[in-house]
Amino acid sequence: MPAKKLSDAEITALLPKAKGWSVVNGKLHREFACKDFVAAFGNMTRVALVAEAMNHHPEWFNVWNKVVIDLNTHSVKGISDYDFVLAEKINEIFEPLPPLHLPGSGKGQ
Amino acid sequence: MPAKKLSDAEITALLPKAKGWSVVNGKLHREFACKDFVAAFGNMTRVALVAEAMNHHPEWFNVWNKVVIDLNTHSVKGISDYDFVLAEKINEIFEPLPPLHLPGSGKGQ
Amino acid sequence: MPAKKLSDAEITALLPKAKGWSVVNGKLHREFACKDFVAAFGNMTRVALVAEAMNHHPEWFNVWNKVVIDLNTHSVKGISDYDFVLAEKINEIFEPLPPLHLPGSGKGQ
Amino acid sequence: MPAKKLSDAEITALLPKAKGWSVVNGKLHREFACKDFVAAFGNMTRVALVAEAMNHHPEWFNVWNKVVIDLNTHSVKGISDYDFVLAEKINEIFEPLPPLHLPGSGKGQ
Repeated sequence: MPAKKLSDAEITALLPKAKGWSVVNGKLHREFACKDFVAAFGNMTRVALVAEAMNHHPEWFNVWNKVVIDLNTHSVKGISDYDFVLAEKINEIFEPLPPLHLPGSGKGQ
Repeated sequence: MPAKKLSDAEITALLPKAKGWSVVNGKLHREFACKDFVAAFGNMTRVALVAEAMNHHPEWFNVWNKVVIDLNTHSVKGISDYDFVLAEKINEIFEPLPPLHLPGSGKGQ
Repeated sequence: MPAKKLSDAEITALLPKAKGWSVVNGKLHREFACKDFVAAFGNMTRVALVAEAMNHHPEWFNVWNKVVIDLNTHSVKGISDYDFVLAEKINEIFEPLPPLHLPGSGKGQ
Repeated sequence: MPAKKLSDAEITALLPKAKGWSVVNGKLHREFACKDFVAAFGNMTRVALVAEAMNHHPEWFNVWNKVVIDLNTHSVKGISDYDFVLAEKINEIFEPLPPLHLPGSGKGQ
């Protein structure tokens, strides 16, 4: 199925579900800080496997524990449904477990 | 610092701290089952980075979500302190967060 | 397209094109020796990307510069056309440049 | 051994040996175009292994087959001997085989 270009209204409607992503320079944008380079590059490898299987690849920058990702779709010259699908998969890779907020437990994870 | 060969008594004393590892055919051995291939190979990449930095590499087998790892040290013809260090790092990679058992919460992670 | 189980006659006919591969224990089998762990794991990462995109994964073993790969197809309980496609892609990854045979030059690469 | 900051004169003297690298914004800079994403990310994985073992990491950007790398050394606030060592290793990874110049052959590889 070819990528479908999203209108500004569609993007605005979808953004709240794409936790942590915003539109910067016409691309879906998010920055992650990992524990160290090993964690960052391990996550990048998982994203690479997912992206290659989708045949939809990120623009990304890394230095040590930091990973900056921009998503857009060349074939539609904008942001497509594919970008939101990949953004969601990237979130699952970088944030597999949401922090637990336990009242009174004194420790999270 | 060169690897130090461990005696059977030393290995027996250290094993309880190396959660999930046992001695099989004279090697530290553990098997992991991940969510899928993407998770398994992402973890393998993290182990590869750690192993290359230690210059101490695993013998390992993978098929889809399964990763089987054997550790020993050629230079000492046996199990060394390096193997236990790597085993510990591998555990941290494959099991970053122990499951929380919260009384009455009805859900873990 | 689902994987298609190959008969023994079909496998025998295809094997000569799959350079370096043989049938061992009912699987396509090949062993590679790379320059070092970095080269071996770099090639494994390329194979992982290709395999995930095909949704067809190898059984493989690695220690330092050595990579041992077995291919078969669970869904058909045997060797399928997918295994030969993956074997060919693996060859291209591990052996990117065929040796040059230059008359009189006395050296290839 | 800690990284050693290089003077402008030292950098100018070393640059001719670092094939393809130039100084951009105070960092060693080079851009590579690979065959495709699989080749690019396979090479990035090899660089990641080398960088983690050196504990000296690149700033890098990737989109599909393109890899842009900047090297400098935070601890010395400039370019150090480590950057030139890593640049050389990166060249060996991305350009494993120098082009053959065969008299009269009219083609390399």
